[in-house]
Amino acid sequence: MIYTFNLQTPNEGFIDITNKVKEALEKNLIAEGICIIYCPHTTAGITINENADPDVTKDLIFALKDIFPDKKEFVHMEGNSAAHLKASMIGSSATVIISEGNLLLGTWQGIYFCEFDGPRSRKFFVKIIKG
Amino acid sequence: MIYTFNLQTPNEGFIDITNKVKEALEKNLIAEGICIIYCPHTTAGITINENADPDVTKDLIFALKDIFPDKKEFVHMEGNSAAHLKASMIGSSATVIISEGNLLLGTWQGIYFCEFDGPRSRKFFVKIIKG
Amino acid sequence: MIYTFNLQTPNEGFIDITNKVKEALEKNLIAEGICIIYCPHTTAGITINENADPDVTKDLIFALKDIFPDKKEFVHMEGNSAAHLKASMIGSSATVIISEGNLLLGTWQGIYFCEFDGPRSRKFFVKIIKG
Repeated sequence: MIYTFNLQTPNEGFIDITNKVKEALEKNLIAEGICIIYCPHTTAGITINENADPDVTKDLIFALKDIFPDKKEFVHMEGNSAAHLKASMIGSSATVIISEGNLLLGTWQGIYFCEFDGPRSRKFFVKIIKG
Repeated sequence: MIYTFNLQTPNEGFIDITNKVKEALEKNLIAEGICIIYCPHTTAGITINENADPDVTKDLIFALKDIFPDKKEFVHMEGNSAAHLKASMIGSSATVIISEGNLLLGTWQGIYFCEFDGPRSRKFFVKIIKG
Repeated sequence: MIYTFNLQTPNEGFIDITNKVKEALEKNLIAEGICIIYCPHTTAGITINENADPDVTKDLIFALKDIFPDKKEFVHMEGNSAAHLKASMIGSSATVIISEGNLLLGTWQGIYFCEFDGPRSRKFFVKIIKG
């Protein structure tokens, strides 16, 4: 009951993965439980936010870049500490409740894979727990 | 084993929902497991922080407003992108361990519903997983 | 299936607790499930980030101090509101998938206890859910 999904990411962006998570759920006959969406990368993360107006995630990317910029004091040689920081701010996973076989998301909620250091080949895991 | 709670929120604020979560737990005979507190809104979130001195959450609201302000570059028509950003920074859920039938919170920890775009009629879910 | 670990923290810092979480897992015969790493303190948190180059967490501590500083407007008497804020930004717990008896972490991922108001005697809990 662990599902792995691959994706190609842009330079920076929020990719709506709600339908992928639903696909994983449809492969199960579980009515009640929880679902963990997990990002195994350290410069990307998972969040839940609005899926109606794509301008919301545009604004989020802009604001994150503005508030958590690259800093001259950063010492990490790879030069992507700002992306590592954003990953810890957004978080590496999201937990969603499963009810009557469906994700119990709010009306405007979508699940996003957040890329902060792309473009890259990435993956995420969906784990379903019955209960 | 999903409990729904409704609340009326102020303009912006951290509402202590610890007792509501305990109420949900008391309706169960579960001794061991975990509890997910989930916010189905995209301009609000759930966090765990100090419940002893109410000045802490006042300072948090002030700091979040100061650090994540509205920006002239935001394009989302509804004009509440700062609230969407705070929601993703705080997170849409919290997970708490259940031990001997109680929430395993630290001495000073309370569970908060965080409103960033009120006043509104809001709700949150409490899901209990035995294990 | 709740394991408690104690640690002594520095003034501020990210302490790699991945091996402690693995220890907890080794005491179980659980092949599949999830693992919740929970911090019961309100000026500390748990995050997942790079464990290869220690400069990454140095940069994270620097950036967090820079972006979430102490503010003259803070009213909380104890004077550590910035630490409370960082705790809510990082989050009080992390969830990791267990697969074939191991933590399903990414290649570069480690689990960190984040101290924002030390030095102190701290603890964290590891809860394992089979499923």
